[in-house]
Amino acid sequence: MSDVEVGRSKRARVAYSFDDVSLVPSRRTRDPEVVSLNWKIDAYTFEHPIIAAPMDSVVSPTSAKIFGEAGGLAILNLEGLWTRYENPEKPLAEIAKLAPKDAIKRLQQIYAQPINPDLITQRIAQMRAAGVTVAGALSPQRTAQYAKHVVDAGVDIFVIRGTTVSAEHVSAQGEPLNLKEFIYKLDVPVIVGGCATYTAALHLMRTGAAGVLVGFGGGAAHTTADVMGVRVPMASAVADVAAARRDYLDESGGRYVSVIADGSMGRSGDVAKAIALGADAVVVGSTFARASDAPGQGRHWGLEATHSDLPRGELVELGTSGTLAEIINGPSHAADGSMNLVGALRRSLATCGYSDLKEFQRCEVVVTPN
Amino acid sequence: MSDVEVGRSKRARVAYSFDDVSLVPSRRTRDPEVVSLNWKIDAYTFEHPIIAAPMDSVVSPTSAKIFGEAGGLAILNLEGLWTRYENPEKPLAEIAKLAPKDAIKRLQQIYAQPINPDLITQRIAQMRAAGVTVAGALSPQRTAQYAKHVVDAGVDIFVIRGTTVSAEHVSAQGEPLNLKEFIYKLDVPVIVGGCATYTAALHLMRTGAAGVLVGFGGGAAHTTADVMGVRVPMASAVADVAAARRDYLDESGGRYVSVIADGSMGRSGDVAKAIALGADAVVVGSTFARASDAPGQGRHWGLEATHSDLPRGELVELGTSGTLAEIINGPSHAADGSMNLVGALRRSLATCGYSDLKEFQRCEVVVTPN
Amino acid sequence: MSDVEVGRSKRARVAYSFDDVSLVPSRRTRDPEVVSLNWKIDAYTFEHPIIAAPMDSVVSPTSAKIFGEAGGLAILNLEGLWTRYENPEKPLAEIAKLAPKDAIKRLQQIYAQPINPDLITQRIAQMRAAGVTVAGALSPQRTAQYAKHVVDAGVDIFVIRGTTVSAEHVSAQGEPLNLKEFIYKLDVPVIVGGCATYTAALHLMRTGAAGVLVGFGGGAAHTTADVMGVRVPMASAVADVAAARRDYLDESGGRYVSVIADGSMGRSGDVAKAIALGADAVVVGSTFARASDAPGQGRHWGLEATHSDLPRGELVELGTSGTLAEIINGPSHAADGSMNLVGALRRSLATCGYSDLKEFQRCEVVVTPN
Amino acid sequence: MSDVEVGRSKRARVAYSFDDVSLVPSRRTRDPEVVSLNWKIDAYTFEHPIIAAPMDSVVSPTSAKIFGEAGGLAILNLEGLWTRYENPEKPLAEIAKLAPKDAIKRLQQIYAQPINPDLITQRIAQMRAAGVTVAGALSPQRTAQYAKHVVDAGVDIFVIRGTTVSAEHVSAQGEPLNLKEFIYKLDVPVIVGGCATYTAALHLMRTGAAGVLVGFGGGAAHTTADVMGVRVPMASAVADVAAARRDYLDESGGRYVSVIADGSMGRSGDVAKAIALGADAVVVGSTFARASDAPGQGRHWGLEATHSDLPRGELVELGTSGTLAEIINGPSHAADGSMNLVGALRRSLATCGYSDLKEFQRCEVVVTPN
Repeated sequence: MSDVEVGRSKRARVAYSFDDVSLVPSRRTRDPEVVSLNWKIDAYTFEHPIIAAPMDSVVSPTSAKIFGEAGGLAILNLEGLWTRYENPEKPLAEIAKLAPKDAIKRLQQIYAQPINPDLITQRIAQMRAAGVTVAGALSPQRTAQYAKHVVDAGVDIFVIRGTTVSAEHVSAQGEPLNLKEFIYKLDVPVIVGGCATYTAALHLMRTGAAGVLVGFGGGAAHTTADVMGVRVPMASAVADVAAARRDYLDESGGRYVSVIADGSMGRSGDVAKAIALGADAVVVGSTFARASDAPGQGRHWGLEATHSDLPRGELVELGTSGTLAEIINGPSHAADGSMNLVGALRRSLATCGYSDLKEFQRCEVVVTPN
Repeated sequence: MSDVEVGRSKRARVAYSFDDVSLVPSRRTRDPEVVSLNWKIDAYTFEHPIIAAPMDSVVSPTSAKIFGEAGGLAILNLEGLWTRYENPEKPLAEIAKLAPKDAIKRLQQIYAQPINPDLITQRIAQMRAAGVTVAGALSPQRTAQYAKHVVDAGVDIFVIRGTTVSAEHVSAQGEPLNLKEFIYKLDVPVIVGGCATYTAALHLMRTGAAGVLVGFGGGAAHTTADVMGVRVPMASAVADVAAARRDYLDESGGRYVSVIADGSMGRSGDVAKAIALGADAVVVGSTFARASDAPGQGRHWGLEATHSDLPRGELVELGTSGTLAEIINGPSHAADGSMNLVGALRRSLATCGYSDLKEFQRCEVVVTPN
Repeated sequence: MSDVEVGRSKRARVAYSFDDVSLVPSRRTRDPEVVSLNWKIDAYTFEHPIIAAPMDSVVSPTSAKIFGEAGGLAILNLEGLWTRYENPEKPLAEIAKLAPKDAIKRLQQIYAQPINPDLITQRIAQMRAAGVTVAGALSPQRTAQYAKHVVDAGVDIFVIRGTTVSAEHVSAQGEPLNLKEFIYKLDVPVIVGGCATYTAALHLMRTGAAGVLVGFGGGAAHTTADVMGVRVPMASAVADVAAARRDYLDESGGRYVSVIADGSMGRSGDVAKAIALGADAVVVGSTFARASDAPGQGRHWGLEATHSDLPRGELVELGTSGTLAEIINGPSHAADGSMNLVGALRRSLATCGYSDLKEFQRCEVVVTPN
Repeated sequence: MSDVEVGRSKRARVAYSFDDVSLVPSRRTRDPEVVSLNWKIDAYTFEHPIIAAPMDSVVSPTSAKIFGEAGGLAILNLEGLWTRYENPEKPLAEIAKLAPKDAIKRLQQIYAQPINPDLITQRIAQMRAAGVTVAGALSPQRTAQYAKHVVDAGVDIFVIRGTTVSAEHVSAQGEPLNLKEFIYKLDVPVIVGGCATYTAALHLMRTGAAGVLVGFGGGAAHTTADVMGVRVPMASAVADVAAARRDYLDESGGRYVSVIADGSMGRSGDVAKAIALGADAVVVGSTFARASDAPGQGRHWGLEATHSDLPRGELVELGTSGTLAEIINGPSHAADGSMNLVGALRRSLATCGYSDLKEFQRCEVVVTPN
């Protein structure tokens, strides 16, 4: 990034968001049919790199089946309504009707219900039974406590996800989670994040993670920047972490860690930008929350919005745009980048002249000032 | 363009739109009467360089006659309603009344009607009969199939136009269109595009094209940037391609290829900017769609909006501002750059102190940050 | 200005508007009472440097008296309603009630009434009788025709004002106005403009003008940028022309030409910025048009809005904020920079620590990106 | 700051606001519980560095007690309603109901009531009785006149606060306040400002002040930039003044002057940014004015809004968000950065990996262009 002086005692790099950049076609074009979107992590291969976000508005055991059958991966939030309530349909129905004025206060109450470890086992079993790759997410604070339940229940991919997850956490009481040891002992591949810088990502890669999540809120429903002042625009974050992947590949003698852009991709064009900036896969939330068959029923919120004394997210009203199947693979009947995410990505590669995701990471981008 | 670091693994050039730049008068001024706006391509000379876009909302055989008589060129879209329907007035009337909510879905159905090659012949004959220069556009995908019909029908200028047209297309089945061969064998001059970079344009110029179209959507009704992430702001694209014209002129020993800015010119001031940045001519859509006698009747859409599974354009409601004749040559009764495009361009040259379009390409510009 | 590449064939300087810059206080402060705002041009001294713009919404013979008595200068537009109509009150009353929809068309008709040279004589006599410094403006196109009437009627300061006035105009028929000769032969000091660059200003200074106007539309009611693409943001234009003043001072062996910022000063803070960037005086339009006793009665428009076939300005509804006396010298009852222009400028100097306008031109400025 | 050319006669530094920058977490994270927010000035230590602004909408003797008990410092404006009226509840109640249209005019009248020195004594006594640290503010213009009353009444921290306070003031009549002498003779620590540059701050530090205020309006209710053109965006101002602290620390052989960011912190994230850019403490206005138990009752205004002939602030309607206690220490039920300011700051440090405020000043920041 370019370096500027904010004031005499502070310099800063200039960082760019997806909105600040655009893709530039090469001198070649391709038919969409000759483009491959395959993505592979550990032993798992997917038809496309678009992952459904571990948010209660997006992934339920039921919707996870649809995502999987449509060629992708869905991550269930293991600290959300599905592990707090036997019948989460009731709180989901209430949230779908909450008046915006009191929304946060009521979300705080709904999520005050404690996590039931048996429900972790039960939800994972449900997803296994559906025959799709099973992924579940815990926050780093709760990973030590519930990891065994998760693994024993038969998760395929273990996700540790927080606003910021570092390889070196300083805790108030006792030993904090030692990520490196934890991952080493685990039998399943781990995806961990968010992070947003070269250095933080490199340290996460060294823990043995199969993938790192780039970003820490910044999407449709997060207000981390307003509440805490913390933000790294995604285009720069992804391009920085992609450099860490390259350097770690060398340092480790060939371990390739997936860089997974997580958040700020509200339109299909943003997914293409994320890959072109160096991501291997992406985690999408709000666009899927707009599905008529998503659990949020047109509402969208993250776990941040439910924090008991410092909520950092809104409950947003998105409305619905189509079915999950249409949003994933089309056909689209809207021109705003909200449907046929896979088709749009395929056409981006074709128009720009690239044949697969790895090649597409070399795509030229321009920065557009306004 | 200036170069910045997006992140450690990606650099980007900074690219500017027409809104980011403005024209700076020289130390000389001229009377508008002593300014020439003549534009010449191949054997055809026009009184001004403003071309009507091959969009069903803008060019019909009837409106093409008006554009021609007003000193300019109009391009008929040979894959639009006029070659799909014997009586396109009916679908046009329906589109003029479509509720925005269902607009795209219905456009997809209306344009699902197959192209009738006989209608290609018939529409071109109609335009010939009107005594104006006849130009028709096909997409690269359909050029091989229909080119013979178009040429046999007596087109004067053949236009190959897609979001991105490259000289080197990789196809799924069989041989793709070899542009160089195709153009070499054709008896009529060819205009081809869009493209948006120096390299892509240089390769298109080498195919033997008489003109290249700069831009690939980005105007009033296109959403290519939202859906696919692809965008090159027009001011930079035009200035880049103008450099390709200069270098190709040298490389070819004197072949001058017209650089034609296509899209993003919503106000008359943008037309002047396009020329000052190096364009020889411009393709205008939305401003003409606002004519009371344009086929769109105040509605505007491009072929992208009608794509069956990935629409990339909106049907926009523009309202009407005056007759085509007033929008082209005035008099204007509006101060927003929507009328008297020719008069405005003439006065730009006069105020800035230039006597013809070629001189005006040297006009100083400033970049304005906000 | 800083230099960037727009594209391979075009570089551009970055230019800033008043909104892009702000003033930085020095390490000293002053009481407003010890600050002088005196401005002198030729033999005329004024208590402050704020000039009322030659627009029919701002200056009438009656309001000119108020401006003069309040310590400043007003310029009557000698091609406006006051020289076209015996009783301009009637068209002014009609304009004050025009529906925005048809405003421009009706303005074109109202201003189609020819100029009556006798009225030029009569209006200037009226202003002389009021005992204030008399200034009147003609466009360069009409200067040759009416200059004798203006001078014979006893104007003190002659203003030649157009969108762009150059020292070297190329005309269609006959000899254009030779500014240098014209000014040399004239007995009264001449202010001439607009211009917006170092070179154009330097050439105007060499004609013998006492002052040059910087800017060519860009204020509240002008649309030159939209219609013709022509714009130079004012902060950069003023700082450029101030450099021409300095260089011409040296070249001429000591002739000091007033640099007068004309337009884009919608708030009192913009007046301070113009001076700090190098202006000696400023021409203000819209803020005065908001006076309850201004001729526009809350409406504002320029001569550009009345052009017969290419209008380049709007009729804008501003509403009223106070009397002319309050807007000039206060007291203010609004916090938006719309009242007490003189008091605000005085306090700017005091807060920043400068004692007069010439010193204030050295004030530090910062560029603020958003 | 980076340097650009505005025009040929003027260069400018680029200056950034809090909105232009964001915080970047380090490679370490911490539990919020292990973070210290302690702030110390002279002999006074506070649990957190968030000071309530000397504005009548925020600090009354009653609310000062709440602020103090919640671990912070409140500054009473000694030239506001509390020293002009025996019963300020009446004018406060009227202001809470003022129609925006006439607000400023009525504020001017309400504040025309003269200051009663006995009330200064009485209000300070009230605050002392509450058992909290007592801080009161005077403008530099009135400091000489009322300082003795303030000190005799037993103030703990003396604040001299104006739009700009310089160490070198030039007055119209008599000797201006000699800050250095004044502070030297005073028994209590002095906080003085606003200022916004390295040089101005350095001179203020040399007067012997314990703290300097950075900023001069720019928050929710100030219009200094509109009215006077004066503005230095806060991120750059804070980072500049922090450099002055460092250089003065060296020059003075170890005197550490608190840098206190004053204004433009409308969300809790801005507080974190101010500290990360180098501030030791912050003065917050509008966010506290939204407390249901703040004296402004949801309305907010500064002394600038009440100036008799050049008001430079608005009376803004903010509505209410919670109690003062909730706004300071939570719990929060809003995700917009308006509640739990202390908790949000604590979590910023934790997420970014810092253990106290001094360390947090080293936090990396990025500049975000849009």
